[in-house]
Amino acid sequence: MSEFDRIRRFFAEPAEAQRKRLGRAAAWLGIGDDCALLEPSAQALAISSDMLLLGRHFHADVDPESLGHKALAVNLSDLAAMGAEPIAFMLSMALDRDQDDRWLSAFSRGLFSLADSHRCELIGGDTTAGPLCLSLTVIGQVPQAFALRRDAAEPGDQLWVSGRLGAAAFALKYPGRCEQADECLNWPVPRVELGMALRGISQCALDLSDGLLGDVVHILERSRLGVMIFADRLPLHPVLEACPEDERLALALQGGDDYELLFTARPQAQAQIHELAKKLDLELSCIGEMTADHRREILDARGIPLAMPFRGYDHFA
Amino acid sequence: MSEFDRIRRFFAEPAEAQRKRLGRAAAWLGIGDDCALLEPSAQALAISSDMLLLGRHFHADVDPESLGHKALAVNLSDLAAMGAEPIAFMLSMALDRDQDDRWLSAFSRGLFSLADSHRCELIGGDTTAGPLCLSLTVIGQVPQAFALRRDAAEPGDQLWVSGRLGAAAFALKYPGRCEQADECLNWPVPRVELGMALRGISQCALDLSDGLLGDVVHILERSRLGVMIFADRLPLHPVLEACPEDERLALALQGGDDYELLFTARPQAQAQIHELAKKLDLELSCIGEMTADHRREILDARGIPLAMPFRGYDHFA
Repeated sequence: MSEFDRIRRFFAEPAEAQRKRLGRAAAWLGIGDDCALLEPSAQALAISSDMLLLGRHFHADVDPESLGHKALAVNLSDLAAMGAEPIAFMLSMALDRDQDDRWLSAFSRGLFSLADSHRCELIGGDTTAGPLCLSLTVIGQVPQAFALRRDAAEPGDQLWVSGRLGAAAFALKYPGRCEQADECLNWPVPRVELGMALRGISQCALDLSDGLLGDVVHILERSRLGVMIFADRLPLHPVLEACPEDERLALALQGGDDYELLFTARPQAQAQIHELAKKLDLELSCIGEMTADHRREILDARGIPLAMPFRGYDHFA
Repeated sequence: MSEFDRIRRFFAEPAEAQRKRLGRAAAWLGIGDDCALLEPSAQALAISSDMLLLGRHFHADVDPESLGHKALAVNLSDLAAMGAEPIAFMLSMALDRDQDDRWLSAFSRGLFSLADSHRCELIGGDTTAGPLCLSLTVIGQVPQAFALRRDAAEPGDQLWVSGRLGAAAFALKYPGRCEQADECLNWPVPRVELGMALRGISQCALDLSDGLLGDVVHILERSRLGVMIFADRLPLHPVLEACPEDERLALALQGGDDYELLFTARPQAQAQIHELAKKLDLELSCIGEMTADHRREILDARGIPLAMPFRGYDHFA
């Protein structure tokens, strides 16, 4: 089977089948032409790209099915953080001999399974030969006035986070020690439903990829605000219980790969957010407050600042 | 300077400056949030991705300014082949130590210079550390009924090609021997203006990236047609004059990287196409005819078929 035939079998044909399953025509024209054609949307288009490299974002022995899932999940997570509804995605890949039929089949399964569950169509991409590299671009839609922008937080807003923090970081530090943590790392759940439900409730969100303390700085810089984070309100993941307290906080605040949403909301939205948590069966925790000054503080239960830098994972360190 | 600062300096800030220069707001929100936001378009959105790898698409000693140009040019060429008008693009990169400030500055210059000339905004992307790899996604717009699709050729249509063929292939084979050929290879001109002007004149086009004989097969397969190509009508590039006849034809028909448009049109459009060639000051040559049967023939001046396979460059060979 030639490389073109393999790409057709594991990507173009599944994309064709996907369009039939989803029964919709967001893509007037999918894989196979110079460009894909998307029908016009009355809403703003939200677009995001992420690149995943062997050796940096995953290891050679990665389960290809979870890699297919995760490659799309981290992109969908960006749409979620904008309050956008997924429409379609592009997939560019460098592949080499290690990506045999068995590998591609599993990768494709993990990819399309998540894509289907979010009604997100594979509409095109590129394939070339080289050390494994994945580059995805996702396209979604959101009414412009409801987009969750990093520059839209205001002083007095509460700071919220979804789910539980630190399990993926635990798995990165102690691979294989805890099945539940490994699953959080390898099969992240993009909070797409939450992002869309936050339209009109929150004005500002981002997804946690490089660690909360590093990521929150993007909100602080773009909204020109400070923040107080209350350490005792952090929703630590149960897998962290085995760790000493310092390490627990470090994993939850400085570890990456959580893909939970960090968002702000006016204090009067609190009841609505608790309702939403019940409806989605997803923990939503108020962990801090945005301030007009430029402070960056994590306070313990007694109100004493902890000495932790507001800095996340550096890809170039 | 941290890596974030460098990306900001060579990409985010130039993108901001670009938006001011272009004086438009296709991107409601550009680099710096989870997603870029594009305003809705009443037309279909044309989307294409290309990945360029060190060692496969270019060498380590590549002139970074021409690489910046070419990385975007090959993507714009896909929009041209759809008849689409460029709007915006995403740029994802893996960079390592070889990409120092001087390198990034030149790359950025080549990139934005071409982007500006097509009013195509850099709206986002991703950066990571690794062996140099570029992955771009371009977004354009085209009225759906005028998109130049590979499946829209009809029997009796004439087959046309823009510009001159084979110079880039000559430069690949004989690097440094001819400045003009090297320039064709390193600074390809995407035929965006031609693609848009072909709306309503042509129904079917693609851009030549892997060699004419390989690329035309995509039209044959998707339109379920055959083709007769007349060898003596091929617009051979003057740099090929030094080569023996066999090699001339091989470079023009099987060599890649021309980025000219190959398109079909009804015979009655011939006068209109000649007018267009004058208007754009660009050679447009009628080189063949689409047939209802599935023949794939190249005929010499006496009508005798040449023995050349309809096959292009194989990235996995």
